[in-house]
Amino acid sequence: MAASGKEESNDVVAVNSSSNPTTESSNNGSISGFDSLHRLLQASLSPHLFQEVSRLLLGLNCGTAVDAVELPEPARWLSEKHDFDLQAFVFRAEKESCREPRIVRVGLIQNSIALPTTAPFLEQKPAIFQKLTPIIDAAGTAGVNILCLQEAWMMPFAFCTREKRWCEFAEPIDGESTQFLQEFAKKYNMVVISPILERDVKHGETIWNTCVIIGNHGNVIGKHRKNHIPRVGDFNESTYYMEGNTGHPVFETAYGKIAVNICYGRHHPLNWLAFGLNGAEIVFNPSATVGELSEPMWPIEARNAAIANSYFVASINRVGTEIFPNAFTSGDGKPEHTDFGHFYGSSHFSSPDASCTPSLSRHRDGLIVSDMDLNLCRQLKDKWGFRMTARYEMYADLLSCYVKPGFEPQVISDPLLHKNGS
Amino acid sequence: MAASGKEESNDVVAVNSSSNPTTESSNNGSISGFDSLHRLLQASLSPHLFQEVSRLLLGLNCGTAVDAVELPEPARWLSEKHDFDLQAFVFRAEKESCREPRIVRVGLIQNSIALPTTAPFLEQKPAIFQKLTPIIDAAGTAGVNILCLQEAWMMPFAFCTREKRWCEFAEPIDGESTQFLQEFAKKYNMVVISPILERDVKHGETIWNTCVIIGNHGNVIGKHRKNHIPRVGDFNESTYYMEGNTGHPVFETAYGKIAVNICYGRHHPLNWLAFGLNGAEIVFNPSATVGELSEPMWPIEARNAAIANSYFVASINRVGTEIFPNAFTSGDGKPEHTDFGHFYGSSHFSSPDASCTPSLSRHRDGLIVSDMDLNLCRQLKDKWGFRMTARYEMYADLLSCYVKPGFEPQVISDPLLHKNGS
Repeated sequence: MAASGKEESNDVVAVNSSSNPTTESSNNGSISGFDSLHRLLQASLSPHLFQEVSRLLLGLNCGTAVDAVELPEPARWLSEKHDFDLQAFVFRAEKESCREPRIVRVGLIQNSIALPTTAPFLEQKPAIFQKLTPIIDAAGTAGVNILCLQEAWMMPFAFCTREKRWCEFAEPIDGESTQFLQEFAKKYNMVVISPILERDVKHGETIWNTCVIIGNHGNVIGKHRKNHIPRVGDFNESTYYMEGNTGHPVFETAYGKIAVNICYGRHHPLNWLAFGLNGAEIVFNPSATVGELSEPMWPIEARNAAIANSYFVASINRVGTEIFPNAFTSGDGKPEHTDFGHFYGSSHFSSPDASCTPSLSRHRDGLIVSDMDLNLCRQLKDKWGFRMTARYEMYADLLSCYVKPGFEPQVISDPLLHKNGS
Repeated sequence: MAASGKEESNDVVAVNSSSNPTTESSNNGSISGFDSLHRLLQASLSPHLFQEVSRLLLGLNCGTAVDAVELPEPARWLSEKHDFDLQAFVFRAEKESCREPRIVRVGLIQNSIALPTTAPFLEQKPAIFQKLTPIIDAAGTAGVNILCLQEAWMMPFAFCTREKRWCEFAEPIDGESTQFLQEFAKKYNMVVISPILERDVKHGETIWNTCVIIGNHGNVIGKHRKNHIPRVGDFNESTYYMEGNTGHPVFETAYGKIAVNICYGRHHPLNWLAFGLNGAEIVFNPSATVGELSEPMWPIEARNAAIANSYFVASINRVGTEIFPNAFTSGDGKPEHTDFGHFYGSSHFSSPDASCTPSLSRHRDGLIVSDMDLNLCRQLKDKWGFRMTARYEMYADLLSCYVKPGFEPQVISDPLLHKNGS
């Protein structure tokens, strides 16, 4: 398929979620069929060994426990009827003497697109709305307080194509995708984070990669625009939109202080830090990323951010392989191709105590839910003292020097470096 | 043993490396007997599954490959005779058109102490010298170019005791430990990084946690003092030494630009960043950390630093359980005890391409060696573009505001927050 080019454009399909992932079609030989690392290890190891491996890999027993919980029957029924992965967990915290627990139920949805990318644009978005409805209903009936969808959830992730026509999917902040989700927010008294492709009509039709924060009464609280834009190989999203101009806002909602680090921003420790300095307790990372490029980095960056900043991280990645009508290159000398790769799902939560939940499927649509006591954030700050020991003054000075053209790195050279031929 | 207190001080022993780790004595029920996660999974999974798990866990197949290599016979003979773990790997990079490969062989040593902590101080340090000699010889005969020892390698990690008498182990930069290692540096044409407890005689006998950088001709190139000092629970190293005053130096050696992030500094993304901004190609993280506290964080922080900063990271942790004569508390309501916990070894290398080597044993002394082509650092910078997309100006401004007393976080509150009882 990798070299198929335009000849096969009549066969273009979206590879949707499937309960039989071994049948997946992919141009990527190293993408394997197993559903999730956690399930693979659980099925392969003895219970004792699995417990030890979990301690190291998921941080279980490291801090407080993360346990699986059962969701209400209507949510489970929706998951079976509509064939999406459903998992639920709880992160625990110490009981405090002066504060009540602040337990929040958070949900993340990952999904493949609903129609082939060749379908009329006017049909593709409503089809995604229709596909998402039972999954959002499952979240609502499960009592989710804060729900986050994946990056640019209302469209195929078409930025690999470099075709400007996909900009037609962009919407204003109060556009149809926001309106669609506002109804659920009101119905379920639920904060909803909606990452869309934004068209800023009042600023000359500028396109942005944006998250809309919808309050639990259906009101729009605000927005955040993606801070860091990937230019990886010849995949360059700045063909479509530039670096965001909204800083690092933290949104104070009915259920806690939240922020959104969109996709590629997860590679930037300073981006994570800034949301932490502004007081975030949960940072969402809605993403669209493919296996060959980033899969081993996926849990590392999220968990490191949670540990270093003493907040919860919620990671979401879309699933499936999206095939586009016209082939494009990848700047790597390999033949042109019609898909960006396999979006490996694997949505999950990371805790400030270094533990994390298992991940959703690498192949199927899914909803992952976790209860978390936000008191844990301050407990970890008090325990580890990273804020107190951070010496921010030193780094403010360093960065201020670094950005000047005349910056000289602090290098101590061995004076014998060029003696004796060494 | 946890509540043993002084009654058992005659029985005080150091739990040394052992090839039969199941006999380990520990007061920590969750520390298990297996040797390393990699070996456990390799022995438990089918070859096909192990390959898939390795792809995700070690980042193999993500970027370039990391393979095991065989070291010369004298090194293997020393490892068998003196019963220390010996592992060797190679990280590969793309062949460039305009630069030759810059392949460096790097070695890391982890070890337990040599004598009980009750032995006369004048005997403990020479016993460690004697114990380390065959391991350093193995590194030298294996052709290691840069060798790094563990944090405060020349003494027990006594900072949990709060007893000031352990300051007697401190030495000036040109003290006996430096002199001991200078001979090996000259003999093997090897850069040696020596993390010691430093006594700065010229500045009023001030104590520091310091790394001495010894050049491949045996000369002292310079030093770096630990930037971030832990105050975790009631474990407070600032009883002994304060935050370092040497900035973030990068040492230009015969074998590349190196830096040292000592122990607790690994929890600070800004510390890692600063060494990167100054041009480091390999950052060493000599540590002393115990299982219950940090083991699940250990590979995450190291690998995240390597990915985010496009350099190699070399992580070293001591091994064994060190038992002290006088019991001490831990500020957690549990009984006083005489050991800090099990130092879990697990020294390893992380690459900027997100791959990493397996780790040394969790129980035994060891030498891990890896060849790395330093050209990979720039290749990853060019591929991922993290530097280019980092927007350092924004963060210089943010940190400059943050450190001012009047800092106001960027918070957007839901205006409906206090309506309808939500």
